[in-house]
Amino acid sequence: MAEPKHLTGDKAGIEDFLAKFDTFLFDCDGVLWSGDHLFPKVAETLEMLRSKGKHLVFVTNNSTKSREDYKKKFDKLGIPAKVEEVFGSSYSAAIYISRIMKLQSPKNKVFVLGESGIEAELSTESVPYIGGTDPSLRRDITPEDFTAIADGSALDPDVAVVLVGLDFHVNYLKLAHAFAYLRRGATFLATNTDSTLPNAHTLFPGAGSVSAPLVTSTGLQPLALGKPSQAMMEAIEGKFQLNRSRTCMVGDRLNTDIQFGIEGKLGGTLAVLTGVNKKEDFLGEGDGTGVRPAFYADCLGDLMG
Amino acid sequence: MAEPKHLTGDKAGIEDFLAKFDTFLFDCDGVLWSGDHLFPKVAETLEMLRSKGKHLVFVTNNSTKSREDYKKKFDKLGIPAKVEEVFGSSYSAAIYISRIMKLQSPKNKVFVLGESGIEAELSTESVPYIGGTDPSLRRDITPEDFTAIADGSALDPDVAVVLVGLDFHVNYLKLAHAFAYLRRGATFLATNTDSTLPNAHTLFPGAGSVSAPLVTSTGLQPLALGKPSQAMMEAIEGKFQLNRSRTCMVGDRLNTDIQFGIEGKLGGTLAVLTGVNKKEDFLGEGDGTGVRPAFYADCLGDLMG
Repeated sequence: MAEPKHLTGDKAGIEDFLAKFDTFLFDCDGVLWSGDHLFPKVAETLEMLRSKGKHLVFVTNNSTKSREDYKKKFDKLGIPAKVEEVFGSSYSAAIYISRIMKLQSPKNKVFVLGESGIEAELSTESVPYIGGTDPSLRRDITPEDFTAIADGSALDPDVAVVLVGLDFHVNYLKLAHAFAYLRRGATFLATNTDSTLPNAHTLFPGAGSVSAPLVTSTGLQPLALGKPSQAMMEAIEGKFQLNRSRTCMVGDRLNTDIQFGIEGKLGGTLAVLTGVNKKEDFLGEGDGTGVRPAFYADCLGDLMG
Repeated sequence: MAEPKHLTGDKAGIEDFLAKFDTFLFDCDGVLWSGDHLFPKVAETLEMLRSKGKHLVFVTNNSTKSREDYKKKFDKLGIPAKVEEVFGSSYSAAIYISRIMKLQSPKNKVFVLGESGIEAELSTESVPYIGGTDPSLRRDITPEDFTAIADGSALDPDVAVVLVGLDFHVNYLKLAHAFAYLRRGATFLATNTDSTLPNAHTLFPGAGSVSAPLVTSTGLQPLALGKPSQAMMEAIEGKFQLNRSRTCMVGDRLNTDIQFGIEGKLGGTLAVLTGVNKKEDFLGEGDGTGVRPAFYADCLGDLMG
């Protein structure tokens, strides 16, 4: 594989790069911003791309927020974006269930282990669900619950999918329900399986920590709908009618973003150095994983030339 | 390895078997009882063994109950037993921390993710702990919690161990605390890592489901103090001064009980057929794992001849 091409300061190289693509998929944290800090010239760069007729899609693994919620973050930071341009792992999961699984009513309900972002996206796709933020499940398990889950009377016979995302309200009662549905044959999906969640300048348990108890207890692995899963690429393609060869993935992490673009056989990948990975990770010998972008820039704003 | 010897109905064989051992370690569920159903002639068999001067130890992976709690179950079923004869995974963990880790005060606190059985056993060994059933941790995580965990102000600097057992009150706040302590270098222990919990004639998520989120988020594996971990055998040996060659493990499960006895180089193992494994699992070709007991009986009461 060729060495990644450095675009920073290379006006002709940037011109060529931009001409290759009609659509840009952007990771957000580490590319556009870090936490609540917006990187320089991000708004101008996105405006420039739009003015050239490029399609922009913002791709995030955060499952707790709906696209509407995410749009508010863009507004707060002063980045022009439309709800339709945001593609989160919850939405990816909803699209996968509604348009790829195509479950037939009435056996088409989803048991949700996660927050309102998942519920909102299932609703936009008219997928019926239970669990989630239902207050009746936000309590301790009782001996009666054990019996009612065991004899099935506490279970909804129409549940065909267990969908797990980050759930700040996870508890044993919800896990016991999810476990019972999986044992009855429900399909095991996860919005994403990120092991950790960056927050408050450190790490906390991520969405993968919410599905882990079910992986351990059932021996099953979920199909993850977030990056780098190609199920997410298929969902994006299904919605935006991508021409993959004319699409570029922009991200800061080699093992999620860049991997996602390479496995998806996109026309190109662009790494920016404002997040997790550094250029030493992919230049020369690199980090040994062999995952390297086609292009890289010191920061996204460098595309302004 | 020789074929397991069948003791049922073989008076001379039973005589020889009993003469080989001074101590018998018993698994409980599947050997003495199933749920609340006591198997035939169990009380008489234990009485017969005592009358011959045998030492009895009841070895359980159940971490939610203290030995006192467990003793009540024996009483309820009419089985004569002393608290000192019960050895649970919580007690095993307490022994391991107090007598093998020998942490020096003040950096000797344990953060507990589990129920009161663990707390009771830590108390008997005078091991200081936090977490556990503390009602102040039985709530939702707040933005202030994220900040206080991140900056360390919510953490006790004297925590040196995170001990995880089955916790019916597990939540994200407790997991976030445990995760932070592990990232700061605390030793990761588990009472046991059983993936499932038999209850109400079916299965529920087990203790391994409570440690799983921490395994996923930290990439660390806990040292498990329950069967088949030899740390439990060492803890039993530390307390009872076993002569291993004169000790027999009695159980119904090959991959926990019998494995535990074989790895512990005990003088013998006895499988009973009243629980999980059947004789086809260990006779002839067996189940392919190669784990086979030295002796087997159709039920424990068959030792009465």
